[in-house]
Amino acid sequence: MSNAEEALMLHEKWQGKIETTPKCQVASREDLALAYTPGVAAPCLAIKDNPDDVYKYTMKSNTIAVISDGSAVLGLGNIGPAAGLPVMEGKSVLFKTFGGVNAVPIVLDTQDTEEIIKTIVNIAPAFGGINLEDISAPRCFEIEKRLKELLPIPVFHDDQHGTAIVVLAGIINSLRIIKKNPADMKVVINGAGSAGIAIGKLLMNYGFKHVTFCGRRGIFNKDTENMNWMQAEMVKVTNLEDQHGTLADALVGADVFIGVSVPGAVTAEMVSKMNKDAIIFAMANPTPEIFPDEARKGGARIIGTGRSDFPNQVNNVIAFPGIFKGALEGRASDITEDMKLAAAKAIAGVVTDEELSEEHILPEPFDPRVCDAVSSAVKALI
Amino acid sequence: MSNAEEALMLHEKWQGKIETTPKCQVASREDLALAYTPGVAAPCLAIKDNPDDVYKYTMKSNTIAVISDGSAVLGLGNIGPAAGLPVMEGKSVLFKTFGGVNAVPIVLDTQDTEEIIKTIVNIAPAFGGINLEDISAPRCFEIEKRLKELLPIPVFHDDQHGTAIVVLAGIINSLRIIKKNPADMKVVINGAGSAGIAIGKLLMNYGFKHVTFCGRRGIFNKDTENMNWMQAEMVKVTNLEDQHGTLADALVGADVFIGVSVPGAVTAEMVSKMNKDAIIFAMANPTPEIFPDEARKGGARIIGTGRSDFPNQVNNVIAFPGIFKGALEGRASDITEDMKLAAAKAIAGVVTDEELSEEHILPEPFDPRVCDAVSSAVKALI
Repeated sequence: MSNAEEALMLHEKWQGKIETTPKCQVASREDLALAYTPGVAAPCLAIKDNPDDVYKYTMKSNTIAVISDGSAVLGLGNIGPAAGLPVMEGKSVLFKTFGGVNAVPIVLDTQDTEEIIKTIVNIAPAFGGINLEDISAPRCFEIEKRLKELLPIPVFHDDQHGTAIVVLAGIINSLRIIKKNPADMKVVINGAGSAGIAIGKLLMNYGFKHVTFCGRRGIFNKDTENMNWMQAEMVKVTNLEDQHGTLADALVGADVFIGVSVPGAVTAEMVSKMNKDAIIFAMANPTPEIFPDEARKGGARIIGTGRSDFPNQVNNVIAFPGIFKGALEGRASDITEDMKLAAAKAIAGVVTDEELSEEHILPEPFDPRVCDAVSSAVKALI
Repeated sequence: MSNAEEALMLHEKWQGKIETTPKCQVASREDLALAYTPGVAAPCLAIKDNPDDVYKYTMKSNTIAVISDGSAVLGLGNIGPAAGLPVMEGKSVLFKTFGGVNAVPIVLDTQDTEEIIKTIVNIAPAFGGINLEDISAPRCFEIEKRLKELLPIPVFHDDQHGTAIVVLAGIINSLRIIKKNPADMKVVINGAGSAGIAIGKLLMNYGFKHVTFCGRRGIFNKDTENMNWMQAEMVKVTNLEDQHGTLADALVGADVFIGVSVPGAVTAEMVSKMNKDAIIFAMANPTPEIFPDEARKGGARIIGTGRSDFPNQVNNVIAFPGIFKGALEGRASDITEDMKLAAAKAIAGVVTDEELSEEHILPEPFDPRVCDAVSSAVKALI
């Protein structure tokens, strides 16, 4: 049976991958009188008098919503909210399994930016955090930015920041092997969507100075037409030499290639024009921009992909559960840039000197050290 | 320790009465590849191609949202969304415990009718039903009516219909003891809010012809000022003799008193003016409109309250879990008037002739027969 066939069969068996489970027993009139009326009036009134008590007496302290409009689901595109629900359920399962965080899947029957913002603000009071998921660019930037301003709880678009954190962790550890200075390195990011932009921003916050974005039409520069507002913002602080040309042109003399784009975008020939000890993150899924053996032929030294069947899988699951676990435990009102940098360093730090190798720059998703390291790092900054 | 003190202590211990729990294990890369990427793409694409498959592959088939704006929480009034959350969590616990229905508490940071409607429509795709809760009248009527029109899933305002169904069940069983004909009986309902109105409507649908509403200013009639639109609607089909006066006036010659109003609204003296074999449902909580012993002094024969420490407790929990269980199992697109009548009859039918007495007209909340009887009755009408 193929993976798809087995997955379909299992999803039919599960009928939903997540359920709600009472934490209190209601097996007698006495139980009912404490968990429900009349007893429940006591926490209600306590919260009414002291709004902060909602963290003391309710699910808000340890529950987030995983919210999507279904506009950019996995690599499947705009398949709509209902079709995106299996992914949100899966993500919610991962939040609980890896981070102990309760997560409620919510899919939105609107793709209008203003309506999405208003809807999420309206349903926020029960939740201690909002994980945005699979919302297409550039709307995702506006939605996240506005929600961060409007809500007193952490808002985190995982497709952007989860990916960026894990990529940065991988690069931090690559540089433990390849002794180069971030400020001197040239990074080329192919794909200026949600993940690509977030990766570029986080790398620059970490200390990279030379980042160039490419897209279907080649290198992003000041003359690129039809950029969205976020791409236009990024062009002001990237590609400082105002290079024109193709991805192949951009890769000449580059130290790092990061692909969040399309299968086969990079060839061994292109890699061979990069600097010595090239680092390749080819994350198009399931078919990467370049397969590891091809990249190695071109001379790449460290290669990561999005796939679990090659070494160095860039998997957000090593970031997001710990990030929300830490944010909730510390009652963070926001997930800051510093927290993202700290999370990346914490992930990198999980890999010991003994474990570290060109084929092992990132911890395994099932490594029990990861979530605690990330959550502690986030919590320390609250 | 008082009930309130113990409830507060327990709520602090629970930190949320409901949690999300994975139904699938994710303990290996293989698990991850089936519950999440790449396997999850298969159900996503199946749903994209056939929207109805969302019931086959996701939580929608067995999950509802329990939604409130916190505007009319228990008897506490407009305490807001966060303060209402403990009640929504409690309700969600009851849905799962009694009906096996997964329920997600959602509290809304808006009390604007149009925004509430839009927000609920926007978050509906993941849910198989919507239970509205603790929304003040008359907004609750408009919100429920519009949502029923807009959404292809059942929408049910429990404060209205759950209460109405259980009251009707109690009256059906009262009439097994007191042989009167509904069409000839006079019913007085004190309190023309969400529950009162719904009770009046359901009783009329069952066959009662003479219903009179009373409120703080006495009997509702065509001259009553400042009625909301729903009260104005009701006045057209109730109090057909256009009686004026007080609640005491209305009760003269009445057969049934239903109180969803304020403590102490009725005296033994007022009950003594009712017809023989009077039926009293005094549901103000925790202090009823009249205590059972007082009502008995006035000559009442069957007396119910909202309290668990007196016989004949009118408790919605004997209705709502089974109603949504049946609606979800049968994939109902709506909860109809016929289903509500069938649910009331099913609840009444659970009490056998041997069990039936003046002090036992309703099944106990923990009676395991109730939920199945109600869900089967609802399902039979889909």
